[in-house]
Amino acid sequence: MRQPDRYFSPDPGVRALARQLYESVRNLPLICPHGHVDPRILAEDSPFPDPAALFIVPDHYIFRMLYSQGVPLESLGVPRRDGGPVEKDPRRIWQTFADYFYLFRGTPSGCWFQDELAEVFGIEEPFGPSSAMRIYDEIQEKLSRPEYRPRALFERFRIEVLCTTDSATDSLKHHRHISESGWKGRVLPTFRPDAAADILAPGWLEEVKQLGRLTGLDTGTFKGFIAALEKRRAVFRAWGAVATDHAVLEPYTEELSAVEAEAVFARARKGQASLEDARRFTAHMLMEFARMSAEDGLVMQLHAGSYRNHNQWVYERFGPDKGCDIPVATEFTRNLRALLNKFGNDSRFRLILFTLDESTYSRELAPLAGHYPAVRLGPPWWFHDSIEGMLRYRRRVTETAGIYNTAGFNDDTRAFLSIPVRHDLCRRVDASFLADLAARHIITEEEAFEMAADLAYRLARSTYRLDG
Amino acid sequence: MRQPDRYFSPDPGVRALARQLYESVRNLPLICPHGHVDPRILAEDSPFPDPAALFIVPDHYIFRMLYSQGVPLESLGVPRRDGGPVEKDPRRIWQTFADYFYLFRGTPSGCWFQDELAEVFGIEEPFGPSSAMRIYDEIQEKLSRPEYRPRALFERFRIEVLCTTDSATDSLKHHRHISESGWKGRVLPTFRPDAAADILAPGWLEEVKQLGRLTGLDTGTFKGFIAALEKRRAVFRAWGAVATDHAVLEPYTEELSAVEAEAVFARARKGQASLEDARRFTAHMLMEFARMSAEDGLVMQLHAGSYRNHNQWVYERFGPDKGCDIPVATEFTRNLRALLNKFGNDSRFRLILFTLDESTYSRELAPLAGHYPAVRLGPPWWFHDSIEGMLRYRRRVTETAGIYNTAGFNDDTRAFLSIPVRHDLCRRVDASFLADLAARHIITEEEAFEMAADLAYRLARSTYRLDG
Amino acid sequence: MRQPDRYFSPDPGVRALARQLYESVRNLPLICPHGHVDPRILAEDSPFPDPAALFIVPDHYIFRMLYSQGVPLESLGVPRRDGGPVEKDPRRIWQTFADYFYLFRGTPSGCWFQDELAEVFGIEEPFGPSSAMRIYDEIQEKLSRPEYRPRALFERFRIEVLCTTDSATDSLKHHRHISESGWKGRVLPTFRPDAAADILAPGWLEEVKQLGRLTGLDTGTFKGFIAALEKRRAVFRAWGAVATDHAVLEPYTEELSAVEAEAVFARARKGQASLEDARRFTAHMLMEFARMSAEDGLVMQLHAGSYRNHNQWVYERFGPDKGCDIPVATEFTRNLRALLNKFGNDSRFRLILFTLDESTYSRELAPLAGHYPAVRLGPPWWFHDSIEGMLRYRRRVTETAGIYNTAGFNDDTRAFLSIPVRHDLCRRVDASFLADLAARHIITEEEAFEMAADLAYRLARSTYRLDG
Repeated sequence: MRQPDRYFSPDPGVRALARQLYESVRNLPLICPHGHVDPRILAEDSPFPDPAALFIVPDHYIFRMLYSQGVPLESLGVPRRDGGPVEKDPRRIWQTFADYFYLFRGTPSGCWFQDELAEVFGIEEPFGPSSAMRIYDEIQEKLSRPEYRPRALFERFRIEVLCTTDSATDSLKHHRHISESGWKGRVLPTFRPDAAADILAPGWLEEVKQLGRLTGLDTGTFKGFIAALEKRRAVFRAWGAVATDHAVLEPYTEELSAVEAEAVFARARKGQASLEDARRFTAHMLMEFARMSAEDGLVMQLHAGSYRNHNQWVYERFGPDKGCDIPVATEFTRNLRALLNKFGNDSRFRLILFTLDESTYSRELAPLAGHYPAVRLGPPWWFHDSIEGMLRYRRRVTETAGIYNTAGFNDDTRAFLSIPVRHDLCRRVDASFLADLAARHIITEEEAFEMAADLAYRLARSTYRLDG
Repeated sequence: MRQPDRYFSPDPGVRALARQLYESVRNLPLICPHGHVDPRILAEDSPFPDPAALFIVPDHYIFRMLYSQGVPLESLGVPRRDGGPVEKDPRRIWQTFADYFYLFRGTPSGCWFQDELAEVFGIEEPFGPSSAMRIYDEIQEKLSRPEYRPRALFERFRIEVLCTTDSATDSLKHHRHISESGWKGRVLPTFRPDAAADILAPGWLEEVKQLGRLTGLDTGTFKGFIAALEKRRAVFRAWGAVATDHAVLEPYTEELSAVEAEAVFARARKGQASLEDARRFTAHMLMEFARMSAEDGLVMQLHAGSYRNHNQWVYERFGPDKGCDIPVATEFTRNLRALLNKFGNDSRFRLILFTLDESTYSRELAPLAGHYPAVRLGPPWWFHDSIEGMLRYRRRVTETAGIYNTAGFNDDTRAFLSIPVRHDLCRRVDASFLADLAARHIITEEEAFEMAADLAYRLARSTYRLDG
Repeated sequence: MRQPDRYFSPDPGVRALARQLYESVRNLPLICPHGHVDPRILAEDSPFPDPAALFIVPDHYIFRMLYSQGVPLESLGVPRRDGGPVEKDPRRIWQTFADYFYLFRGTPSGCWFQDELAEVFGIEEPFGPSSAMRIYDEIQEKLSRPEYRPRALFERFRIEVLCTTDSATDSLKHHRHISESGWKGRVLPTFRPDAAADILAPGWLEEVKQLGRLTGLDTGTFKGFIAALEKRRAVFRAWGAVATDHAVLEPYTEELSAVEAEAVFARARKGQASLEDARRFTAHMLMEFARMSAEDGLVMQLHAGSYRNHNQWVYERFGPDKGCDIPVATEFTRNLRALLNKFGNDSRFRLILFTLDESTYSRELAPLAGHYPAVRLGPPWWFHDSIEGMLRYRRRVTETAGIYNTAGFNDDTRAFLSIPVRHDLCRRVDASFLADLAARHIITEEEAFEMAADLAYRLARSTYRLDG
């Protein structure tokens, strides 16, 4: 059986209170305001395929670790762009994963995986090379049952709301399908217009044209382009969207004049934009998106600091999201000043900041969130969505920003089945964090119980305006 | 009653020793070598006004947190520059503060406030929306008593010495008044010539002229300007000053030739200085101030890395020090090289470094302090003057620099009544830190007791040459 | 007696398991794949000189701390470049050290020193001003015994292999001497060609010429220079080398064309190279060294981010390695991209990264090591080779990279006698780290025991290909 006290502080006094705090929140519904679950899964509600296709082939947290020790991605079934041969036998993929599972000792991926086996599939046997095939068979058998269909799991997981992430030109057909199906699960789109905001990205011009086609507006001018984005936001809002999402390498913001913006846009359309044009265009688009958020109420999320596709060879062979995005040092204080000076005091606007650079927690992000009414801090992101990562975040952020300028938990996952264990792990770590504060009499026990519910449920709900 | 074991480690063994260590230092006198208490308070020794004027209106640690959640500064009585209407009723301000007091859960401001109620006012009732008015009345009543007058509190707090922070052109009349009053409290000025060192600051030229008027020297040349600063330092020393203080965005140092310095100074006087001029002028002034310190023995404090008045709207409406100073990444190794190469080996010179960028603790500051005879590390500053902040500081600094290259505690506050609880919190955290070292047999218990007294009292006294 | 539970967590449950884990690895042989022991010591096997010459005069960890408090290096016997007078009496040096030994409270140098007295010399008496001379005599007496000769200690310490660090033009005569002596101790050279890779370093041209003389190749062209380095590597490999080592200020990598490389090399030979030339030359040399490593199998170590000889006065008076190397912020993600894109996926290549900038652990290094097959993370380096430093490293690195992308322990010392206690301290801290993970049920106890042996022994052996 998974240890009931897992992830709590080893101190007996702290642990006893952590257990109580955790028990008080463990069954609260799940708020999933940011993630990457494919809405098709819930639209179609088909049985999940085999264990390898579920746990390994699509999960860059998993296969990057094996790759780091020399296991070819091909042997894990990761499809090649050129259609070249990769392992197709899910049992062989599964066995390879099991043979290298020791690599995940001490990692959140290891914890999540074992928690999923236990919590989702009721499998308590330790996973490893010798048990791998038995466990494979048990998962495979269960996946064929009706209660393991996506919508049944959605309900069993007590997901109150699940937000997906969708490009500005997404048809939202799966969201429509879900809505029209009569099923009551709340699955909302999130507006992520990154492909439109980076004028040097390969498909940018096509994205601009597609925006024109979808909206019936002329996106041949910057003004028309902006209008088309606004129209798409309205469509997303109509389908229930509460937020937008923006990924940038650096969170630089700058307002261009209307004339400059049109000129850069025109150069970009002709394929003549410079690197500096691209940097300033993205900076200006963040200003535009902030303005739109202030106007239409969509919460703006900003994920900064990931150097995408650092490994060119892997990118060319396998495509994006293959575990080779590497963080870079990130600057928020100077970069966000233009945006915050224009919109940071506006009560209609809300900006959630995410970082991969932990040195910014106490230095920049907590002071910004502890001052600007518009700013909230997103939970520890990606590599930092982990036990120690969460503790570092809370310990560095809380003293300056409190917990009420933080956004609650995001599971931020494309692995639908991992959602409950990710929330569970976070609830446990937060419970332990709060119990430790109470043990040191920094907060009272009564406060700790209230804060536990805030962190587990209420803050995510209110930050993303899901209760409005 | 405030918990007697508050802020100690939850580990029973560590806590037991922490309690003993704390008891051994809790009643030591307070050394306050750096802070922002208005000397007028102690010169006039008038009763403090109402609780809102005491705790909320002037304290940017407090009102920034409410502002971050959308509470207008006007409703907290923060005066507007344009004289526009703000809340005047201290009871309404106090109630608003109480309504939002939950925001401070887990923050040092929350701890200090409750400790102050208990330790200074003897109020043990938990503060909150429903108790706010009762507590208001009790504070108000006590403030009218003679034993709550500033000088009485100074004595009750066992303040051995309190250093204020004063501009180079300050008349020091309050210090004179205190001195001439016959009262024995030791209140010393600190020489902070920032207004003279930044040639792009709005009032710079006026400050230069005022330096001329006060000293009778011609500050129309750089040479005269320097002579005037030296003369002012002599005045400060005559009134007991032991230190200077310098706030810079980046701690860049560079020595200009006499000709260059005069040329930049001349351009600045004509309002023709460039950004680069300003950067190099400040860099050169740090060299000059270091030279003066080596010559006159005033300890040089350097506070680097705060981007002041980040929120232009708040700055324009309410002025400086309104909670919108945001830290930036700070570089010390290369920036300080010129200064340390010239003065770092000089036994007459002492430089205390403060940072808001915790990543510099172990990377740059501890190695600098663990080598250069002139360098000491100031305590965790501002946002990091907190329980976790202190622990991070000690854990990252001690292994490289030891504790004997650190400067002891600074309360660094303008809130006179918070002084004893700030020292008390630090003494508790240091006791817990040392108890943990002893529990791991990194130091002996005997050493821990000696180090506790060093951290609580002796280091501040010796670092600032207050025992000389 | 040294406390048997030293350096373990104070939590009783964690400590109990830490003790067991430690006991399971404490007697494993020592793998010393990176360090700075002078091979002459083992070649000559002469008795060590007096205690001061052993512990103080050559150890910049020690004398920098006394210097930071104003103790002149001369009084510690550190030789001056100009041959000027320094203290010669080892007893006076030893007494000065003892008088200031309190400075080392809470530092690893303090722990190591006391552990050495106890573990190597059997001296349990606490070291201090009053015991200093008794302890001096006891050490001095023991140093004269045969069992305190270097080779006897090497065997008593259970050193399985010791790698030294040697310039590309080193004659390796001591290694030859050891090999020819019939003694079975495994002492291997490491190829460190820094003097050849920095075209602005004072002795660069002489080093290039010396490479030509040693190899009989024409190093007047870049092509010949590269061939000479390759030939030297072959010599090092013949003497058992398994690794190279490279120290750079920034880990910038860039591939120059053959024409460019020749041009820069030619300018450098004429003394006409610019700073930019030097930066690009070093960047290109890292590419060349990576290529050579891929071809000849030597593991490539990269130590980045130390600003050498920051204190010019100390450097001029006493030379390099005098405790005035100060770390700088270091960037790996962008800087290493060229190198990793060319060689990072190559299974023949192995690159071990070391940093003095702890903010890069979780931000850059763990993500790089958790993806690229070629990358491993070196242990916490220099200032961070300490109890807290090790814990920070493990806590920030493990969740993203696991332990199997880390390189095990390096003692990295020139102090031969400190080797066993440095390994012992690390084994204790790792045991405590693992016990804490097990107490939180992040790993099982069985896993903890296996990981303890991996961290203490196996990882260093396999990472450096010492078992191949």
